[in-house]
Amino acid sequence: MGEDRLLAWLREQAPELTAGIGDDTAFLPPAPEQAVTVDSQIEGVHFRSGLEPERIARRLLAVNLSDLAAVGAKPAHGFLALSTPNGFDHQRFFSAFLEGCAEHRLHLAGGDLARAPLIVATLTLIGERPEGCRWLRRDNARAGDVLWLGGTVGESALGRHLLERGNGLELPAELQAEAQQAIERHLAPRPQLELGRRLGRHERVAAVDLSDGLARDLGHLCQASGCGAVIDAEALPAAPGHEELSRHLGLDPLELQLGGGEDYVLLFTLPPDEAPPRSETTTRIGEMTTDTSLRLRHGHREGLLPDLGWDHLAS
Amino acid sequence: MGEDRLLAWLREQAPELTAGIGDDTAFLPPAPEQAVTVDSQIEGVHFRSGLEPERIARRLLAVNLSDLAAVGAKPAHGFLALSTPNGFDHQRFFSAFLEGCAEHRLHLAGGDLARAPLIVATLTLIGERPEGCRWLRRDNARAGDVLWLGGTVGESALGRHLLERGNGLELPAELQAEAQQAIERHLAPRPQLELGRRLGRHERVAAVDLSDGLARDLGHLCQASGCGAVIDAEALPAAPGHEELSRHLGLDPLELQLGGGEDYVLLFTLPPDEAPPRSETTTRIGEMTTDTSLRLRHGHREGLLPDLGWDHLAS
Repeated sequence: MGEDRLLAWLREQAPELTAGIGDDTAFLPPAPEQAVTVDSQIEGVHFRSGLEPERIARRLLAVNLSDLAAVGAKPAHGFLALSTPNGFDHQRFFSAFLEGCAEHRLHLAGGDLARAPLIVATLTLIGERPEGCRWLRRDNARAGDVLWLGGTVGESALGRHLLERGNGLELPAELQAEAQQAIERHLAPRPQLELGRRLGRHERVAAVDLSDGLARDLGHLCQASGCGAVIDAEALPAAPGHEELSRHLGLDPLELQLGGGEDYVLLFTLPPDEAPPRSETTTRIGEMTTDTSLRLRHGHREGLLPDLGWDHLAS
Repeated sequence: MGEDRLLAWLREQAPELTAGIGDDTAFLPPAPEQAVTVDSQIEGVHFRSGLEPERIARRLLAVNLSDLAAVGAKPAHGFLALSTPNGFDHQRFFSAFLEGCAEHRLHLAGGDLARAPLIVATLTLIGERPEGCRWLRRDNARAGDVLWLGGTVGESALGRHLLERGNGLELPAELQAEAQQAIERHLAPRPQLELGRRLGRHERVAAVDLSDGLARDLGHLCQASGCGAVIDAEALPAAPGHEELSRHLGLDPLELQLGGGEDYVLLFTLPPDEAPPRSETTTRIGEMTTDTSLRLRHGHREGLLPDLGWDHLAS
């Protein structure tokens, strides 16, 4: 059973008990000013074995902060469950983790430490609603809204592929800097917290952060909002050198953008007459439609968006 | 570096950021009516491979609920991060998990599902302060207070040993029922939520739940409160057949009681003139002292409490 079917089954089992399951962030009914999110980073699944403890710490933090960015929350409290094999350097991990916490004014308020045969880090974050802002929700899009992307897509996946190929890969000198950049993007994503907070000042926004890939996360947003979308292949923003690097690795640059995943930028919709918060990286990529299908436009041609992206329970 | 030293280092690094690290439960400053706790259950570490998904679910829930019991909180919201290998039966897990949630009026409000080479389940719980009650804290004990135990100790550890020995172990017929009971206690601990809530009506209580073993958790309570304790070996409550079963397994019954761990009963102190909430299982086991040592009394003899119990980062 894949992730989507399992979540559907869960919601059927206990609609009241599992209200927020499958959404990345839940809002606490008795304290609606708080948003809660939880995510894990597992050795061999989310990062390769041997990754430096500092990198693991920053990635764990970034991935979770991105969930708070997607609802427009201000980070407040963190709870860390960290299980590690013998010999793990906790001090390197925590030094980097606490540095990241301080940067985002996040208080590490509790946690649990354990031994395990591999590194598993689970972070729960509690965020607050900034004064004068609304929560961003994924079910707020309407047909006719414009679809925006907070940054480039595909670069993180490229970085992951580069890391997997390792040193065996020879790159032309003119692609070295872009390759390094892609690896950095993959290892140290930058959650768009500021963009999320600014979006919270708009009257009606729908937003998600891209973790599973543009196609799949767009699907989540459309499903929640009960509408469809069409996106322009040519409008999708890419990092410099994306096409050349992809071709060099034998990968389809568009497929990486649509389904590579772990971009950790915000995908959001606004009514057509509203401009997004000013940012160098915000790009208009399509529109929301009445028809519930997800479509991809290449110039004048249009077809169904390919079913790309990450199902976390797929074998 | 062991767990205690690491936690001390962490608190030095960022006293403000890490206020609650090492305590099992944190209180949220902006919403002091909420307590948060997080705990993991890892295959091969906290339970053996092959344990039924229902058992894993119930144990995860019980261990975390026990942390809420220790502060006198009423369970409110849960966030589950569940990572599992291919083939894991999510439906069996969730059916049992949701049943347990319903029993405790706990709402599963969010979560994260992922694939991993082994089962790792991390649960974050948010509990509320019952009306008219105080939070229970571990730093509230004073010299002269009486030390109470909410139930028997050592039985869960005995159950763990029995499970480890497996079917190879032949037990006399008269110990079969007790052995089964010990295994059940180990796999399905019963958090003392009701006792925790009742203690919250007292003026001044110090409490912890026993997960690392009586000796070690008593040490945590004494350290937080800045005093010591003396406990009576003969007063420690044990399950029926504890001594016989321990001897049969070649284990020291008292060592199991002091350091076996995973008892998940409450250890608490009250001023000497206050009776504990009425319960069949509450036993007076000692007193708090000015001298900060932990001592064990056998009749008229008295010595230092042996350093037994679980350091989660020990090799």
